[in-house]
Parts: sequence; C-alpha cells; structure tokens
Amino acid sequence: MYCYTYRHRVRYRECDPMGVVYHSHYIDYFEAARTEALRAMGLPYKTIEAEGLFMPVIDLAVQYKRPAYYDDLLEINTCFDEVPRVRVPILYEVRRAGEPMLLTSGHVTLCFFDQERGQPTSAPRAVRALFEQALNNQTD
Amino acid sequence: MYCYTYRHRVRYRECDPMGVVYHSHYIDYFEAARTEALRAMGLPYKTIEAEGLFMPVIDLAVQYKRPAYYDDLLEINTCFDEVPRVRVPILYEVRRAGEPMLLTSGHVTLCFFDQERGQPTSAPRAVRALFEQALNNQTD
Amino acid sequence: MYCYTYRHRVRYRECDPMGVVYHSHYIDYFEAARTEALRAMGLPYKTIEAEGLFMPVIDLAVQYKRPAYYDDLLEINTCFDEVPRVRVPILYEVRRAGEPMLLTSGHVTLCFFDQERGQPTSAPRAVRALFEQALNNQTD
Amino acid sequence: MYCYTYRHRVRYRECDPMGVVYHSHYIDYFEAARTEALRAMGLPYKTIEAEGLFMPVIDLAVQYKRPAYYDDLLEINTCFDEVPRVRVPILYEVRRAGEPMLLTSGHVTLCFFDQERGQPTSAPRAVRALFEQALNNQTD
Repeated sequence: MYCYTYRHRVRYRECDPMGVVYHSHYIDYFEAARTEALRAMGLPYKTIEAEGLFMPVIDLAVQYKRPAYYDDLLEINTCFDEVPRVRVPILYEVRRAGEPMLLTSGHVTLCFFDQERGQPTSAPRAVRALFEQALNNQTD
Repeated sequence: MYCYTYRHRVRYRECDPMGVVYHSHYIDYFEAARTEALRAMGLPYKTIEAEGLFMPVIDLAVQYKRPAYYDDLLEINTCFDEVPRVRVPILYEVRRAGEPMLLTSGHVTLCFFDQERGQPTSAPRAVRALFEQALNNQTD
Repeated sequence: MYCYTYRHRVRYRECDPMGVVYHSHYIDYFEAARTEALRAMGLPYKTIEAEGLFMPVIDLAVQYKRPAYYDDLLEINTCFDEVPRVRVPILYEVRRAGEPMLLTSGHVTLCFFDQERGQPTSAPRAVRALFEQALNNQTD
Repeated sequence: MYCYTYRHRVRYRECDPMGVVYHSHYIDYFEAARTEALRAMGLPYKTIEAEGLFMPVIDLAVQYKRPAYYDDLLEINTCFDEVPRVRVPILYEVRRAGEPMLLTSGHVTLCFFDQERGQPTSAPRAVRALFEQALNNQTD
C-alpha cells in the first residue's frame, strides 16, 4: 500500500447554507490529492498526457460520516494498493489535521486510456515500475 | 417507482481539457435533478428547511460509462423507489436527450436531519404522504 | 441593442454560509446566459469553435447590489450593443423573475481568437451579419 | 501597501477545452489568497464572523492577459493599500511562480457588514489596528 497525505484548507465558496462543506467538493479534493500522490511517486499527471494517455474516472463512491467546516485544515489520505494494469483503484480518507475521527471516505477508479485509439489501454511499463517502487518502499 | 426527468445543457466551464464533462459536475446535475423531482412531487426543498429539517447527502456512487460533450442537452432521470423513513435513496441515469445510450448512472442517499437536535430523524408524516401519492400515481 | 433573458434557478451548492449566492457563481450564470443569447441569434458557440475560433474572456466586472437566495428564479438579462470586430462587449443585469430590483450587474468582454495562429482576429463576415440582423430586429 | 503571496497549483477540473484555466476560477483563487493574507495579518476571517460581522464582496473586476495552464504553480499577489473603514479594496496579480509576466490582474472590494442589523458597518477598532500594523510593517 502506497499512501500520501494531501492537506487542504476549506474555503468559503465550498461551504453551503448548512455551514458545512458541500458534498461534491470532496470529489475535487480527491483530484488534488491523487495528483500530488502521483507526483510524489515520480509520475506527474502532465507527463502521462504528454505520452498520449488520459486517465479518466470510471467510477467513484463516497461515504459522508461527519461534516467539515469553513477554514478546517483537512488531511486527505490517498492510498494505492496495487500495481495497475488498466484500472487504477484509489482509496481516500478525510480527517481534520491532527484528529483521529474519520469525516469522509471514498474510492475513485481511474483507467489508462489511449488518446489516439480512443479506448482503455494497459499502463506503460515505466508507469508500472514507478508504482512497484512506490508500493515496495512503503511496505518496507 | 416515481421518476422525473430533468434537462441540463452542458456548459463550457463544465468541460475539461479532454473535451468532456469533468466527472464531479454530475454530482451537481444530480442535485438540480432531485430538487426539481421533489418540487414536482409537491415538496420544494425550501419548505423542508423551513420546517426545521436538513437533508444532507450521506453517500453516493457514480459509474461513468460514456462521456458527455460541450453543449450536449442531457436528460437526468431521477427515481425514488420507496416511501422514506430516515434515509432517501435516489437513483440517477444520464443520457443525451433523445438517445437511448446510458452515459452515466449513480445513486445518492440523503437523510432527514433535525436542525435543532443535530441528528437524523424520521420523515414527517406530511412528507411521507407526498411520497406515497407520487409513488402510487406513477405505478398506476 | 440586442437583449436576451436567460432564467436560472439558484442551486444549494451555489449558496454559502451567509445563505446567499456566492459571488463567483454569477460569472457562471453569465456564461450560460450569453451562450443562449448567441444561440437565439443563430450562432451556437459550438459552430464558432468548429470554424477554428475561440472566444476567450479578456475582462469582466461585476457589481453586487443585493443578494440572491437559495431556490430564487433569476433572470439574467444579456445585451449586445454593437456589431463586433475583434472584441465582443456584453452587458448583464440580474433580477429575481418578475421583480424590478436590480440584484447584480456586470459586463464581460470576449474576443475572437484564431486557434491556429494563437492570436486575436476579426469576427468572420457571417458572424457579423448575424449580429447585424439581431441588432436590427430588436431596435425595430 | 501590505502584500501577501499565495500559491496555487492549477487543477484539471479548473481547465477547459481550450486547455487553459477557465476564467471564473480566478475569482476563487482571489478568495483563497485574501483569506491567507488576512490570516497572516492576524485576522482569520472566521474570527470576523464570530464577532457578528460578514465581509461580502460588493464589486470586482478582472483583466485576463495571458492564459494559465494545467499544473502551473501560480502566485497570486494580494495587496491592501489602506486601513479600511467600511470598504476593503484588494488588488491582485497572478503570475507563474518565478516568472515575471503578468497573467491576470484584478481587484475585489469587500465591505464590513453587520449580521444582526443587516447593513454595512465600520471596521471594528481592533481590526483597523491590525491593518495599520500590517501596512506599517511592510513600508518599513
């Protein structure tokens, strides 16, 4: 399992009349978190697109357990638990920084997608190698 | 089963560099669709809040099958299949207007939540009656 | 002057903890409004891009006078007052449907931009003709 | 003049089919930037609301000169040039980190607003003192 923690400060525009983070914004937090997780792994998403691939989201699910409030500093824990073939499943947990309580959990599945052929494809060997390295380093 | 079809025109700001609707916007389409479905049922969400309740989202899931493009006219089919107690499960299917192919499907679960006591609660009797009426009318 | 009125229902995700529409969403309302104004003029934005042009925003300004609330039905009045050369200035006024009070006003300037050459360009003759026709019809 | 530089990494969801940051997102960058500028001044916005005030936006303007791209690291320079009475004018400049070229500039005017009386009000003395201190320190 390779995990990365991304921090996000809740913005006013993200909070609704209930005074809490509106639910769709967690999906945006997940994007920022996995982008930084991939970068930390040596795999900036920009280089993936430059090599003729896209990584669209093919499914997602979110469980909202407790609300987050304006100006909260959130930690979005982002975990990859396998070297991907075509699909890249990613797990998320959101907490307030320094607090143990789980606020929100979720998963998002991406896939590797060939821009030219317009269809799903396998992860390039170099990408798989970076995942292997990241997964090995963290289980040490 | 009570179903309602909401139409949405895809906006430029909703499309990403892949030229398709960015995945988190479907969650926003779902909000607009269920709001109008509830209004058509005689239950504008505003009156629910005016009676001391909130209806937060407690979980959701989305399956992305095919992309939607800029300026597409989408139909978001929104279905309720039971008279709610505490939880309100809602099913969604998104298609291009007049086309049979499913683009995206999903579900969102809301719950009735007492603003003052700060906890989940049962649907008021009048609300349940409106759901019963809507469910009966459509299965006739 | 060619004017078009676009209607928008305020969504929950657009409202903030003050209980009013968060200010940046008006910019999104303006996009939807001018898109429909152009379509009504016979000029869907999609066809503009298909002909090798973009129409990026080059400046905008908004004055917020009174708040809009959740579930308000807004009318965004969108006016063009000249046949464009390179720049397309557009004026906006937002009111609650059926009410005279101005809530928000603004302007947005677009320009015609050549996708291939990567620089501003003049409006194609056919586009200018559609603007002329629209401006003439409304001042009759 | 009191200035603060906020950094933001451009996200995929913020980019449109032209491959650049969609214009309305700069308004969101400005919110994040001024929030951190105020916090650095000793004035977290949360404490302002806790003291019975709001700070709504009353006008704004943006000039878009050059595009920003996916994954760009942006610097949003945020400046206050006076001790506020009722209105708080704020100036913004956006550049790529480490590059001199101006991408976007703008201003936003907030005002102090009494939550209970529902109208604009003067900045509390303690707030004015923090602005004075910040403005003095930076001109040294």
